Amino acid sequence: MTQQHLAFADWLQSRAQHIETVLDDCLPAADAQPARLHAAMRYAVLGGGKRVRAALVYAAGQACPVNGSTVAVQASMDRAAAAVELIHAYSLIHDDLPCMDDDVLRRGRPTTHVQFDEATAMLAGDALQPLAFELLAEMPIAPALVVQATRALAQAAGSLGMAGGQAIDLDSVGRSLSRDELQTMHTMKTGAMLACSVALGGIVAGASSATREALDDYAHAIGLAFQVVDDILDVTADTASLGKTAGKDAAGNKPTYVSLLGLDDARALAEELRVAAHAALVPLGDSASMLGRLADYIVLRDR
Amino acid sequence: MTQQHLAFADWLQSRAQHIETVLDDCLPAADAQPARLHAAMRYAVLGGGKRVRAALVYAAGQACPVNGSTVAVQASMDRAAAAVELIHAYSLIHDDLPCMDDDVLRRGRPTTHVQFDEATAMLAGDALQPLAFELLAEMPIAPALVVQATRALAQAAGSLGMAGGQAIDLDSVGRSLSRDELQTMHTMKTGAMLACSVALGGIVAGASSATREALDDYAHAIGLAFQVVDDILDVTADTASLGKTAGKDAAGNKPTYVSLLGLDDARALAEELRVAAHAALVPLGDSASMLGRLADYIVLRDR
Repeated sequence: MTQQHLAFADWLQSRAQHIETVLDDCLPAADAQPARLHAAMRYAVLGGGKRVRAALVYAAGQACPVNGSTVAVQASMDRAAAAVELIHAYSLIHDDLPCMDDDVLRRGRPTTHVQFDEATAMLAGDALQPLAFELLAEMPIAPALVVQATRALAQAAGSLGMAGGQAIDLDSVGRSLSRDELQTMHTMKTGAMLACSVALGGIVAGASSATREALDDYAHAIGLAFQVVDDILDVTADTASLGKTAGKDAAGNKPTYVSLLGLDDARALAEELRVAAHAALVPLGDSASMLGRLADYIVLRDR
Repeated sequence: MTQQHLAFADWLQSRAQHIETVLDDCLPAADAQPARLHAAMRYAVLGGGKRVRAALVYAAGQACPVNGSTVAVQASMDRAAAAVELIHAYSLIHDDLPCMDDDVLRRGRPTTHVQFDEATAMLAGDALQPLAFELLAEMPIAPALVVQATRALAQAAGSLGMAGGQAIDLDSVGRSLSRDELQTMHTMKTGAMLACSVALGGIVAGASSATREALDDYAHAIGLAFQVVDDILDVTADTASLGKTAGKDAAGNKPTYVSLLGLDDARALAEELRVAAHAALVPLGDSASMLGRLADYIVLRDR
């Protein structure tokens, strides 16, 4: 490993540890009533995950010159990073439910509805969504920026974003999709929240519109790359290293980039997107280096 | 019926018709992809309901002297009223699911998961939540007020509000609750969103803190009254007039105000809360008359 890779690995780990503390602070205490609901929320959110979305918020923020109080911006970055992790955690709880993917294993642990019960799991997801918006509303920055962040998160999580992509995914089981259709689904299902994470970093930092456009281009590339690599890992990794049930998409007859393009072309596409992500960052200069490393990490992870 | 009651009935009906148009406009078109998800969202939200929450937003707004552009305030009232109706609609979809109340009838129609399927119903609810926050973020008023409204809605919908109350309700089946415990549950489950509706009207209008306090006192009383009357109707009304399955709480051995206090004392409590709601409105004068009529309506509806 090069020095640069080591520095990135340290940075990513320190961000993951930091966001864990932030999430722990912003979730209701485990003994606050209703205790079972709060325990389920904490179980689903804490103790794991790569925290890629939080890292994207921080790295995007780092890529922007900050105007105003850096203390307020840092506190706001924490809330924005926590918000995207809460939305991600809620989506995993609901995706794992019996009426959806019916999965029993997540991050090597029983899924929330297995550990608790279906109703509690559903409500835990339901309650994590407004908590994410509450965190944004508490950001100590200009209210106009808070409103922009709120709109970005709402759109990314909604029926034209993550929830909509999930609905298309459900409808696609057993059907063949064109590459365009598959791309639309993933752009909504996974890409929207990854892109939102990048956008939130820019919004909180008060980035210029030129910077935001560069961030958007970067986010589009890594959003797609993330899903292509997920599809590759689904066939190449085993359940233990994946922390969730491997081979599930193939077994469920879900269309994937691997089933559509084959393994080699899927890998070539992931590499192409990684290069595109780096190209998008050029105007931002050295301050965007962690975003560049995150693009590498997303494409090269776990294999 | 007195002239005053006729005027109120007309007003309530006109508000219900108006919010229906607003909701129709703000929901994605039925043919926008993913079409099945959008159809489910529209099915759950449109075509029914008493729209009490929207009416509370409008009536609370009417009770406050408005500073600034009345056009912008009216447009914002519409979005705030739509937002609380979207959150309410999402909560009904999820409450009706098999893992929760497992109900097949709502407003005299098949529930959303019966009409569509469980996964689509869950996702429709999931997607309505962010749409509500998106509408608030689009309100053309001072961003600081938008942020206040966002925080109020997030808290009312979250684990210390509606979702938390629902969790306590689940845990209470077959148990006996004290009157305090029952009140806590209902204050969270139903009261929080009713109170939020009243609060949003005040926030959007830019109400003074004294006015907001009066609105809060009013909202607390009607929130509780609403649930006491719901419990009364559950034993006195039939399924047809209720539009949902009657006697369900009693049959499910859920604690209710009727099971705790008896029918006569529950009715006396509802009347006491109605009087308290009117008392809270005294400082606001004549402009709060529709809020007063709404308190009467909530307590005297459907029997």
